[in-house]
Amino acid sequence: MPRSGADARRRLQQAALELYQERGFDGTTAAEIAARAEVNERTFFRHFPDKREVLFDGEADLRVTLMQAIADAPGNLEPFDALLCAFRKSARNLEDNRPFAEPRWKVIAVTPALRERELAKHAWLTDAVAEALRQRGVGDGPADLAARTGWATYQHAVQSWVDDPAQSLDKCLSQAFDDLRALSAPTPPARPA
Amino acid sequence: MPRSGADARRRLQQAALELYQERGFDGTTAAEIAARAEVNERTFFRHFPDKREVLFDGEADLRVTLMQAIADAPGNLEPFDALLCAFRKSARNLEDNRPFAEPRWKVIAVTPALRERELAKHAWLTDAVAEALRQRGVGDGPADLAARTGWATYQHAVQSWVDDPAQSLDKCLSQAFDDLRALSAPTPPARPA
Repeated sequence: MPRSGADARRRLQQAALELYQERGFDGTTAAEIAARAEVNERTFFRHFPDKREVLFDGEADLRVTLMQAIADAPGNLEPFDALLCAFRKSARNLEDNRPFAEPRWKVIAVTPALRERELAKHAWLTDAVAEALRQRGVGDGPADLAARTGWATYQHAVQSWVDDPAQSLDKCLSQAFDDLRALSAPTPPARPA
Repeated sequence: MPRSGADARRRLQQAALELYQERGFDGTTAAEIAARAEVNERTFFRHFPDKREVLFDGEADLRVTLMQAIADAPGNLEPFDALLCAFRKSARNLEDNRPFAEPRWKVIAVTPALRERELAKHAWLTDAVAEALRQRGVGDGPADLAARTGWATYQHAVQSWVDDPAQSLDKCLSQAFDDLRALSAPTPPARPA
């Protein structure tokens, strides 16, 4: 039975994730991933430039989705509200793919080579978020600060969601932005002794 | 004249920074850095495991300094105030080394291999900041969120400082945390039409 390119791609991703969990990233070769996915090694390299990229297929789509969602957020929203709105929209995809997204997150967290790649992708996504905020008319400085801290809040929310399977990512996101506001609230003046 | 190890180390760092600016990171070899620093290549590798680490010598010290400064911050300070206090203390070192720190930041920003290494160091420092907050009695969740967003705010401040030579880093840090509070302020209710 002929297998479509998109199907082979998904099988390669699933196979890589399984093998990284079973043997670790360093103990897995591209040939082994291809074998588990029932394709040949050339097919692996037609889809992915290296063993790391196989787990980062969604980042380019995520960049487009996020920038669009920030542009589409109601015009009267302040930067953090626009970001929360956009993150919640893009999180639906993660939520729907929890059986893949959760072990993926855990494998990346314990594999320095994957963690380095992920951090580079996140920096690239943070730049995109800042750019989308500027396109909403937010000034350079606030756009940079809101993108950096908003992204950090998003990552905190994903961590909470991975740590507690009972919670939805949507709820974790709302909670994380509420907690950020609580942390940022003006300190009450010290009471006289 | 015999040259101390610490002196050779500093000369290697300065030589690496100069060469990365002149020829780019990829166009520079460890042997060339050693030659510019007037030591041999073996000396380079006695001090640094690779061409990237030569620009990240201060991170281990920074980790110790930051954790100590967070521990030393007045006990009644809320997490962000304790972080601002600690960042301002550790920033003095950057401020004093501006002739090295500023071009270093710029070279890293345009060199993907150095940027990846830097992001990994920052993740490691963010974990240390969260741990130091937990040791002050801050709960796991708020400590993680404050560390991530506080670190993001610190990086925004360093970027502002590099962009505008007229400002002190100390001032950029206070401004960045003020701006974060402004971004996080509750949205005023919409006026009736």
